[in-house]
Amino acid sequence: MTAGRGRRPGNIDTRAEIVVAARAVFSEHGYSEASMRAIARRARVDPALVHHYFADKAALFVETMALPLDPREIKEQVQDEGFSGARLVERFLAQWERGSDSGSPSFVGLVQAMAASPEVVDNMREFVTERIGLHGAPGDSEATQHLRRSLVSSQLLGIAWTRYVMRLEPLASASRAQVASWAGPNVDRYATGRLLD
Amino acid sequence: MTAGRGRRPGNIDTRAEIVVAARAVFSEHGYSEASMRAIARRARVDPALVHHYFADKAALFVETMALPLDPREIKEQVQDEGFSGARLVERFLAQWERGSDSGSPSFVGLVQAMAASPEVVDNMREFVTERIGLHGAPGDSEATQHLRRSLVSSQLLGIAWTRYVMRLEPLASASRAQVASWAGPNVDRYATGRLLD
Repeated sequence: MTAGRGRRPGNIDTRAEIVVAARAVFSEHGYSEASMRAIARRARVDPALVHHYFADKAALFVETMALPLDPREIKEQVQDEGFSGARLVERFLAQWERGSDSGSPSFVGLVQAMAASPEVVDNMREFVTERIGLHGAPGDSEATQHLRRSLVSSQLLGIAWTRYVMRLEPLASASRAQVASWAGPNVDRYATGRLLD
Repeated sequence: MTAGRGRRPGNIDTRAEIVVAARAVFSEHGYSEASMRAIARRARVDPALVHHYFADKAALFVETMALPLDPREIKEQVQDEGFSGARLVERFLAQWERGSDSGSPSFVGLVQAMAASPEVVDNMREFVTERIGLHGAPGDSEATQHLRRSLVSSQLLGIAWTRYVMRLEPLASASRAQVASWAGPNVDRYATGRLLD
C-alpha cells in the first residue's frame, strides 16, 4: 500500500510531516471532504510526493489512525513483560484518548470514515491482518493465531464503540484502569487461553 | 418515546405496519434520506398517525432496529433455561442475519446511521439502557447490573462490528455456532461471573 516506508533516512521527516498534515485535515474536514491535494498543501509538499508515499486517501487515513493499533505496543508487552490483557486494554484506550487531545481523529472519526467508505474498511482490515500479531499460546496453528487476533479485535473495538460512540455507562466514564480490570481477563482468554471445547 | 405501545388492540396492526414501512424506507433510502412523510406514505397512513406512535425519526429507526436487541430473548433464556453466553451470541447473530434476508436494515446500516446522527446514538443508548436487562449474579447491586449490561453490549457489538463491518476472518465467515463457542465463555463472565478482583 505504501512505498519507501522510512527506508531512506532523508525522507522520514517528509513522510511523517505528511501524516501529521493528513491527521489535521481529516480532523478538521472529515474523511469525505479531505483531499490528497489539501493534505499536500498543509504539509507544504508537492501532491506527487503524497502519492509517492501513500497509494490513496484511504491508505493515508489508516496511517493516521495507526497509533491506537501500533503493533509495537503489543510486541513490547509479549516480549518484555509477558502478555497482559488488562495492560493491552489500558494502552489501547490511552492511545485513543491521547489522540483526542493532540488533534488526532478520534474513534468516532474512524467509525464515520468506515461507515462512509468501503475503501477505508478494506484498508483497516488489511492493516489489522498484516500488522497486528499476537504470539498466542504455545503450539498455536496459524489459523488459531488468526482466530485470536479477530477475537481480541472484536473485544477492543467493542469497548471503544461502547465507550466512545454509544457512551453507555459505566464503560463511558470509568477510568481506563477500571475498564482494563473488567475486560482484561476476557482479552487474556482470547489472546492466550483455551478457545475450543 | 412512543405512545400507545400495543395497548389498544385495534391499533396494533397499524403500528406494526408503520414499522414495516419504516424498515423498507430506511433500507432503500438510508437513514438520512428517509422522512416520516415517506414512511407514512409507504404505510398508507396519515403522517400525524406516525407521529402519534413515534416521537421522531430516530425513535422509529430504533424501533425498526429493535429485533436484534429484543430483551425477551434474553429474559427467556434466563428464566427458562438458565443464562448461556453462547446461546445469547448465537441468537444475536441469527437475528441480524435473519434481518438481512427480510429487508431489515443491516448492522452496517445501523453503524452508518449512528455515525451520521447523534440522535440515533442517543436513542440507541436509551433503548439499551431502558430495555435490556440481565439478571446477573445473585446479590448484584444495581451498579453491577449496569456494568454487566455495558460489558455484554461491548462484546456483542464488537463481534458484530468485526463480522459485518470489518469482515475480519475467521469471525466474518465462521458459522454462528462457531462464533458462539469462541465468545460464549467471555459473555458468561460478563453476564454472571466475577468482574472485580
